[in-house]
Amino acid sequence: MTEDRYGFGVIPKPDEKMRALAAQRWDSLAKPIDGLGRFEEIICRAAAAQGKSEPALTQKALVIMCADNGVVAEGVSQTDASVTRQVAELMGEGRSSVGIMTRDYPLDVFVYDVGIDCTDTLKGVIDRKIRRGTGNIAVEEAMSRQECMAAIQVGIDAAYELKKQGYDIIATGEMGIGNTTTSTALYCALLDLNPELYTGRGAGLTDEGLARKIRVIRQAVERYRGLFIDSDSESDPVHDPDSVHAVDFPECLRQLGGLDIAALSGVFIGGAQCGIPVVIDGLISAVAAYVAECLAPGCKEYMIASHIGREKGMEVLLQKLSLEPVIHGDMALGEGTGAVMLFPLLDMAMNLFSQGTAFDQTPIDQYERYEV
Amino acid sequence: MTEDRYGFGVIPKPDEKMRALAAQRWDSLAKPIDGLGRFEEIICRAAAAQGKSEPALTQKALVIMCADNGVVAEGVSQTDASVTRQVAELMGEGRSSVGIMTRDYPLDVFVYDVGIDCTDTLKGVIDRKIRRGTGNIAVEEAMSRQECMAAIQVGIDAAYELKKQGYDIIATGEMGIGNTTTSTALYCALLDLNPELYTGRGAGLTDEGLARKIRVIRQAVERYRGLFIDSDSESDPVHDPDSVHAVDFPECLRQLGGLDIAALSGVFIGGAQCGIPVVIDGLISAVAAYVAECLAPGCKEYMIASHIGREKGMEVLLQKLSLEPVIHGDMALGEGTGAVMLFPLLDMAMNLFSQGTAFDQTPIDQYERYEV
Repeated sequence: MTEDRYGFGVIPKPDEKMRALAAQRWDSLAKPIDGLGRFEEIICRAAAAQGKSEPALTQKALVIMCADNGVVAEGVSQTDASVTRQVAELMGEGRSSVGIMTRDYPLDVFVYDVGIDCTDTLKGVIDRKIRRGTGNIAVEEAMSRQECMAAIQVGIDAAYELKKQGYDIIATGEMGIGNTTTSTALYCALLDLNPELYTGRGAGLTDEGLARKIRVIRQAVERYRGLFIDSDSESDPVHDPDSVHAVDFPECLRQLGGLDIAALSGVFIGGAQCGIPVVIDGLISAVAAYVAECLAPGCKEYMIASHIGREKGMEVLLQKLSLEPVIHGDMALGEGTGAVMLFPLLDMAMNLFSQGTAFDQTPIDQYERYEV
Repeated sequence: MTEDRYGFGVIPKPDEKMRALAAQRWDSLAKPIDGLGRFEEIICRAAAAQGKSEPALTQKALVIMCADNGVVAEGVSQTDASVTRQVAELMGEGRSSVGIMTRDYPLDVFVYDVGIDCTDTLKGVIDRKIRRGTGNIAVEEAMSRQECMAAIQVGIDAAYELKKQGYDIIATGEMGIGNTTTSTALYCALLDLNPELYTGRGAGLTDEGLARKIRVIRQAVERYRGLFIDSDSESDPVHDPDSVHAVDFPECLRQLGGLDIAALSGVFIGGAQCGIPVVIDGLISAVAAYVAECLAPGCKEYMIASHIGREKGMEVLLQKLSLEPVIHGDMALGEGTGAVMLFPLLDMAMNLFSQGTAFDQTPIDQYERYEV
């Protein structure tokens, strides 16, 4: 198998020399060895991704991909699809949750419409609409292959554009009623997991609503599997999740995904291509990250985990990507809120990294690193 | 048993009405129910602690208690005791890790000398020295009962003084070579835990160093137990950790503790007495928090957990206090670094809490809260 099976180009390897230099810098500072733990690792990871011994993490962007999901017709969410558009409008005005949370924080927010079910252009929202919402994945494909590839490209272009504008790091976020349903269907299909054990309550569901959501997800996953089993009983696409040989990932994505997920996977791919670390938010973003790694192996080296949300599946997805989230807030808000909460923590870590007092500026003997 | 067995006054109950009003405010905002998860809970907790439906979390202080520990003579740490003084001096100049990390963050740092082994007054450090370091807990009491009570009082006074100065929330931190040893001895004695399973590597130890540290901690705990078993074989003070009847907590603290731990426990007590939330940092701070709850039951309602550090025992201590940390950074730096990293996260949560867009300001129907 070529590393560029789907034409996204070979992802460059991160710069291990810069990672090592960054680690050396941490050890030279007057503090216990590995004192900032995972935050030291994240800074080293950013160094490797950017190819700089001292990573730049000043210019920060949040990309929010918004789209509607046809599966909402099945009653999988508490609210109806119109809320996607309403919240996207609030986002455009900086009045949605993430905008208010970061009101006094240096962050630029880019809201993309990749598939909101409306005809008008929303103020403050970048119009890259592929189609007005997806098909209902319980009974039909979400989108065509071409639409899927176009949505991925929106994300790739976004990453390149941000790189060009001088951004150092990108957080990911989304808005789309029904997207915990599409995300759960997608990762359950990709990882051969039982939807009954993994389906969460999204933005809030009764027991009855949850049971319905599970049925709908199972139906969608079975429909997808049926596409392959019917034509050739030997080629069931669901199998050992560590094997990336058998599944046609764009096919799975276009059948079960959302336009938001496809576009976000593009942001992860584009970020990796141009050496910008991209921060994963919650479930939808994590699924997009996993899809990106399936589409363009090596992307994961450019990803940073932020929080482990309330939705199930986060743990297994982040494990697949060898990432560990640092915020355990039991959050389920979306919009990239968890991803941007990582930023001020990185700021504090970066302050120490770049301005910290080194042992050789003090009378203190440097701590030794013991292999343990 | 009276709730005020040790004369610290009865801790007032937090204001449940204000907690409920704060929770109601969260639910009124245009976001999924419980979207910010534990951060919503923390804000509600602060509301109950302060007795305000909208807590104030603007004026932030960090109190760092510094002291030396006689047990360092046993070779339980990589560095010698002089480092306590050297880092405290850096702290006084704002050049230690926490000072640099928060250089551009609105935080006031108060560094206390409650027992550094030096004769001179350090610049930028508040001199409340009780004695020059403690006794070596492996072979003798750490301090007298009077010294222990005086150290606790330093912390209580610090909390009252900060309240008077208008601070809304206090983070706790410490510096003292050897204080993971004293902390581990103390909580192993209080909770009847095996030091072999709970002793960590502090700021860095070889396998040999770790084995020595375990031996020293065991020796200290056994010495402490022996004090009681010798005089009356029926009154072994170590037993069901949920029973607060049998242990004389100030006795345990003065035998095994450090002056930093005692003083920090005072900060937690004082904070609870005057209605200021106090943020727990890592192991030493968590032990002090647990001791505070033992000394003055009810204190824990005013505590906020920040991070779960690398040292073992954090999990059991926070569980005892019914607290869940939101930052999982595998950190082991001290100085209150983990506690202050919580602050920008609370800022973002508070922005949303106080300025968020309510459902009734949008066309969106309010999400319903289902009992699940």
